[in-house]
Amino acid sequence: MKALIYDGPEKLGYRDAADPVPEAGQQLIKVLSVGICGSDMHAYLGHDDRRPAPLILGHEAAGEIVGGPRAGERVTINPLVGCGTCKACQTGHDNLCPERKIISMPPREGAFAQYVAMRDENLVTVPQGTSLNAAALAEPIACGWHAVKLAKRALDGAAANALVIGGGAIGLGAALSLTAQGVPNVTIVEPNALRREVLNGQCGQNAVAPDDLPNDALFDLVIDGVGYAATRATASAHARPGGVIGHIGLGEGTGGLDVRRMTLQEITFIGTYTYTAQDFRDTAAAIFDGRLGPLDWTEQRPLAEGATAFADIRAGLTAAPKIILNPHA
Amino acid sequence: MKALIYDGPEKLGYRDAADPVPEAGQQLIKVLSVGICGSDMHAYLGHDDRRPAPLILGHEAAGEIVGGPRAGERVTINPLVGCGTCKACQTGHDNLCPERKIISMPPREGAFAQYVAMRDENLVTVPQGTSLNAAALAEPIACGWHAVKLAKRALDGAAANALVIGGGAIGLGAALSLTAQGVPNVTIVEPNALRREVLNGQCGQNAVAPDDLPNDALFDLVIDGVGYAATRATASAHARPGGVIGHIGLGEGTGGLDVRRMTLQEITFIGTYTYTAQDFRDTAAAIFDGRLGPLDWTEQRPLAEGATAFADIRAGLTAAPKIILNPHA
Repeated sequence: MKALIYDGPEKLGYRDAADPVPEAGQQLIKVLSVGICGSDMHAYLGHDDRRPAPLILGHEAAGEIVGGPRAGERVTINPLVGCGTCKACQTGHDNLCPERKIISMPPREGAFAQYVAMRDENLVTVPQGTSLNAAALAEPIACGWHAVKLAKRALDGAAANALVIGGGAIGLGAALSLTAQGVPNVTIVEPNALRREVLNGQCGQNAVAPDDLPNDALFDLVIDGVGYAATRATASAHARPGGVIGHIGLGEGTGGLDVRRMTLQEITFIGTYTYTAQDFRDTAAAIFDGRLGPLDWTEQRPLAEGATAFADIRAGLTAAPKIILNPHA
Repeated sequence: MKALIYDGPEKLGYRDAADPVPEAGQQLIKVLSVGICGSDMHAYLGHDDRRPAPLILGHEAAGEIVGGPRAGERVTINPLVGCGTCKACQTGHDNLCPERKIISMPPREGAFAQYVAMRDENLVTVPQGTSLNAAALAEPIACGWHAVKLAKRALDGAAANALVIGGGAIGLGAALSLTAQGVPNVTIVEPNALRREVLNGQCGQNAVAPDDLPNDALFDLVIDGVGYAATRATASAHARPGGVIGHIGLGEGTGGLDVRRMTLQEITFIGTYTYTAQDFRDTAAAIFDGRLGPLDWTEQRPLAEGATAFADIRAGLTAAPKIILNPHA
C-alpha cells in the first residue's frame, strides 16, 4: 500500500509500505478520510519523543472494511486501545488506562495510509446519510465532547453560557459539543482573523477577537482548547464565581492560572484528556443525527499531497479548521 | 468592655472599647471562646489591607446570649454575613455573595472582645454536652468541611483515601472532616516535627514528614490547606488519575500546579473559600454529636494575654493547633 511516512523533522515521504495484517478480532480498513491533528503537526516538527521516525502518523480516520463478513461496511475508527481489564477500563475511564495505546505511536502504525488494521470494538458503523469526512471528525470532536461532559457535570446547576478559547478543530469541536449538549450562548475567542471569518461564516459560530472580549465578561463554563499559560490566564479570568474550566490543551506544562481568584471565587479546573470509548460513540451518534451541524467545514486533499498539506498548515496558509487526506483519491 | 485592639503591625492593645449595640434581629453575645486564625495573624503582621488599624480582630467565636428572651443561651457564631438576596445567597452559595461581610473586617468589629453583636440567623445553639472551646472550632473546621464536601462531590466514585497538606488548624479540620464524611485512610503531611507529634498523639491523626511521603503515593482526594506554589506542586503530584484537589489556602496567588500531569491524568482542582451557612450548621452538628472527635487539642489563654499569644505563635513557640482566647478569664 501507499503511505505518508514521517522520516524526521519536517520530512514526509509518500511511498510504499507493508500492508497491515489484521489479527483475530480485527478488521482491515480501507482508509478514505483521515484528518491532520495538531499532534501530527507536533510530531512532524520533531517535538514528540513518543513518535520517532520512521513512522506512519494519523489517527482521525474513517473508511470501509475490506474482506470478511463485514466487507464494504463504512466505519469510523476510535484510535485509542485500552487494555480492557484494568480498573480505569472497567469503570468507564478507559482514557486513563495506563496501558492505553493509540495508532500512530509505536508499536501501532497510523492511518496516513491506504489501509489500517483495528479491533472490532473500536469501529463505529457509519450510516449512509453521513459522509466519511464528517465521520472522521468523531475523533477530534470527541475530545471537546468529553471536556464539555466533565465540565457540565462539575458545574452546580445548568450552564447558561460558555466561552471556548481557541478556534482550531479542538475548540470548534468543543463549541459544537456545548451546543449539542444543551449549553446556549457559546462564544469562541480566536486571535486569527482568517480563522474567525471561517468560524463566523461557514461554521455558524460566534467568534470574537481577544480584544473584543470584555474584561468583565463571565461564563459558567470555559473550555481551554489550547493549553498555554496565556490561555489559562484568560480562562481563570473569565470563569464566573462557582464556574468550571475544562482544559484540553497540552501547549505548556505549567503556569497561567490565577489560583488566588480561583480560590476566592471557587472556580473548578478539570484537566481533560482524549475521550472514553462511550464518548467516542456518543460523538459519532451526534454526528450521524445532525446535532453537531453539517460539518462541511473540512478541506479534503489527496494523501499523495500530504507533505504539502503539512507545510501549508505550518505556514498558516490554510483557512479550514481541518484538513482531511484521502489515501485513495 | 475590654477588647484586644490591633493598633498596627505586631501591635495589639488590651483596653476599653465601646460596647456593641445589637440592632433589630441581632443578639448581644458575651464572648467566652475565640480562636486565633491564620488570617488574624496575617492582619497582625500588617499584611492585610482589608483590615486596617485600629480594629478588633477575631472571628472564631462562641459565647452566651446576653439579655432578651434568649438570655443565657450558649451559641457558636457564623461570622459571615451575606446579603441574603443575591443569586449566590438564594442558591445556597452564600459564601460567594459579592456583598459578603465578615466580623473583624470593617465595618464590622471582631470578637477579640468581651461582647459582640450578631444577627440571629448566624447563631447556632450549642448543646450542654459541648464545650464552648469546641463550639468555637465550628468556624475553622467548616472551611475544611466545605472543601471536603466539594472535593467528594467532584470525584467520580467513592474516595478510599486522602492526603491533607499542612497540619495547622485548617489541615487538621480537613482531616477530621474527611473522616466524619466517610473517607477512610487519611494522611497529613506536615514538615514541623513538633506539630506532627501533636497530630499523631493528642489529635489521633496519621501525620508524616514530607520526606516520608513516597514519591509514588497517590490519593483519591488531596486537600491543600496551605496554598503555596510548593504545596500545590505536592498536591498535583499526589492526586491519582481522575483524582480531585480541594484547595483552601491563599498563601501565594499563582504557580505550582503541574498542569500537564493534571491534563493527561484528568485531575480536578477546586478552589474553595470559607463555607456556606449550611456547611457551618453541618460542621457544628458534627461537633455536637462527636463525629469530629473530642476536639481537646486547643489551648486556652485569657484575652488579656492575647498580645503574648500572637507573639508566641509568630515565634513558633506554640504546639497546639489552635490557641483560644477567653475574654472573661
